[in-house]
Amino acid sequence: MFNVKRNAFYAQSGGVTAVINASACGVIQAARHHSDHIGNLYAGRNGILGALREELYDTGMESTQSIAELMHTPGGAFGSCRYKMQDPAASDNEYQRLVEVFAAHDIGYFFYNGGGDSADTCLKVAQISELMGYPIRAIHIPKTIDNDLPLTDCSPGFGSVAKYVAISTREASLDIASMCDSSTKVFILEVMGRHAGWIAASGGLAAEREGDPPHIILFPEIAFNRERFIAKVQATIDREGYCVVVASEGAKYADGGHISGSLNRDAFGHQQLGGVAPTLASMIKHALGHKYHWALADYLQRSARHIASNVDVEQAYAVGRAAVDRAVEGETSIMISIERGAGPAYNWSLGSASLSEVANMEKFMPADFISADGFGITQKAREYLAPLIAGENYPPYANGLPKYAKLKNALVAKKLNTDFDL
Amino acid sequence: MFNVKRNAFYAQSGGVTAVINASACGVIQAARHHSDHIGNLYAGRNGILGALREELYDTGMESTQSIAELMHTPGGAFGSCRYKMQDPAASDNEYQRLVEVFAAHDIGYFFYNGGGDSADTCLKVAQISELMGYPIRAIHIPKTIDNDLPLTDCSPGFGSVAKYVAISTREASLDIASMCDSSTKVFILEVMGRHAGWIAASGGLAAEREGDPPHIILFPEIAFNRERFIAKVQATIDREGYCVVVASEGAKYADGGHISGSLNRDAFGHQQLGGVAPTLASMIKHALGHKYHWALADYLQRSARHIASNVDVEQAYAVGRAAVDRAVEGETSIMISIERGAGPAYNWSLGSASLSEVANMEKFMPADFISADGFGITQKAREYLAPLIAGENYPPYANGLPKYAKLKNALVAKKLNTDFDL
Repeated sequence: MFNVKRNAFYAQSGGVTAVINASACGVIQAARHHSDHIGNLYAGRNGILGALREELYDTGMESTQSIAELMHTPGGAFGSCRYKMQDPAASDNEYQRLVEVFAAHDIGYFFYNGGGDSADTCLKVAQISELMGYPIRAIHIPKTIDNDLPLTDCSPGFGSVAKYVAISTREASLDIASMCDSSTKVFILEVMGRHAGWIAASGGLAAEREGDPPHIILFPEIAFNRERFIAKVQATIDREGYCVVVASEGAKYADGGHISGSLNRDAFGHQQLGGVAPTLASMIKHALGHKYHWALADYLQRSARHIASNVDVEQAYAVGRAAVDRAVEGETSIMISIERGAGPAYNWSLGSASLSEVANMEKFMPADFISADGFGITQKAREYLAPLIAGENYPPYANGLPKYAKLKNALVAKKLNTDFDL
Repeated sequence: MFNVKRNAFYAQSGGVTAVINASACGVIQAARHHSDHIGNLYAGRNGILGALREELYDTGMESTQSIAELMHTPGGAFGSCRYKMQDPAASDNEYQRLVEVFAAHDIGYFFYNGGGDSADTCLKVAQISELMGYPIRAIHIPKTIDNDLPLTDCSPGFGSVAKYVAISTREASLDIASMCDSSTKVFILEVMGRHAGWIAASGGLAAEREGDPPHIILFPEIAFNRERFIAKVQATIDREGYCVVVASEGAKYADGGHISGSLNRDAFGHQQLGGVAPTLASMIKHALGHKYHWALADYLQRSARHIASNVDVEQAYAVGRAAVDRAVEGETSIMISIERGAGPAYNWSLGSASLSEVANMEKFMPADFISADGFGITQKAREYLAPLIAGENYPPYANGLPKYAKLKNALVAKKLNTDFDL
């Protein structure tokens, strides 16, 4: 039984982005708009952990102004987490606890803002309704810089990283082009993206015509071959005087061995990648003797709100708002999706996908997005990517630095006497 | 004897910056303005190498529009070089060659845009007048992201890197603050600056109040002590939940040993630095076990024209213009300098310094700019740095990417039959 007016829970999950707070802004503003259906909107402190620990921020304490500032603030305003919920088939402890906390605070709406792993968590929460008889509507708000969520044209967070990587590639290429005659001949930019080459591909947007940098893109989808790579680097230097490489952190050999040797694993058991650029640089130095530079943008790329894509900001906000609208209309177990209209001009609208089809799936670069030699992007990829980086959405500045939101993040008084052992 | 109207030579030297082309713009526009004194303005292809090889670009072939676009274009539009001129006491071959080329093209003005090594080259060219009886006026236009030039309040190029590093530190800090509860606890940003800590110091501007990130800055001026560093990292995590470190590439142990083991050297014999961040990260992992992320901005920081400091852009342009004005007035053997007026509001004007006092000197962070524990900046440093990152100066965009100038770079016909062996 679903009462007319209940409280809502919102949380951020996984790696944060330049625009995940724009989704939060959309959720909070929509929840305030639907005050006939939604009472308080609680934000989980550090994602789903906030629900398990009964650490809930009362977003009602935040001013209209602060919430509006979330539109231009990177990072996760309520904290995020890397936490894999238990498999309910093995143990339903955690889900029992969620129901306890939700019931204590009359939470009937669950909005989870994350990637593939989070979609799985959101699905399991939605299933609480049937399995445990607790009425709740759970909607997933897509977010991942990796752009690897299925059943949506793109993922909020990706467009801004893509823009940052395309701009950085163009800028650093002008630098090395100036230096190559007597100094550095190779520049390598390592970018994120895990097992999918979307972010690396976006570096390709820096090129306007044949021969423009980047000259080589390394995708996780294409098996790395050392000899072919070295030959391409030298051929590029022979022709252009220098060579710019954009390498995905997930680039790997045909046998699945990563180029970098890092073996750290996160809470989901995913390998913590990084170190591809220095490995490639030393490979080139050894084989060809060229002076190199390399950069590893790491968090800089996914927090670079100062140069966010306007399309990305707008989409991130829209999916947040739509999640609340749809929940109020009675929907559950869905992810809000972004749909691309027929061209030629880019236009998009919102749709939805069933969570059971989304969870734990990864979307890779299609084969026809990668050029025949495996080192570049095709016109088709370009047409897909270009609209996602369109428009600048600058934050306000004070004293030369962006002014980012600072929330009160006031915790709601706990109603349960029990702590929960994670 | 100095004729009324002669041609001029301009070249870019050393590592390029986000605003060195703004200086080029100032030089070219001023030369066009002084058409009664200056005939053609030739730009050296790849710095001084262009003069030695008689590879001169005719800037007169560039449209007013293209020259104006240099104001917002990073990198070196004519190519730069890392090339150490011979010591004229040992061999004056190279200076003989310069006189040959200058005489062939009636070059009477020499504008050299670079850092400390370039100031030395510029000084030696100025001395050609006396030593070799060839009349030329040589003026140095300051440029270095390292901010290590003496006798100027700051160096064009620095303010924009400082702004990039301050913004990136603030943004990445919001990222890790969101993730630290269940994931990454340490973030390290490695920045440039060679032997001076100016760029690392600018990361400190990201903090607004006590306890704000960055929590640790590592300067080349302060001997690195592993135990004190590890203790400070852990104390910061205990207090804040995470720790953000900005590390200069030049940070080193008391015995002068660099934290990173890189041994590459550039044409000036300077060590090619890099790799401090991963070394620190693995030190922390080993001692404390925390999950870390690190970034190495490398060329991204010095080519980031998309977020250049407006003050820096204006100063870079002004020193270029002033160099030409001063030369036309009859000056030589000077570097244009930037002078800071009495406060409290920031104001600056141009001055000059004798090249013999500038050449081959490095300006380090004053002791009272570094906090007592050696891990942060003082209020005095803050007051020095803050005005240099003031204001945003955005380039124009098309299709989501900055539109940067593309020059014709048409080579002037050679007048000498001889090639020159470098």
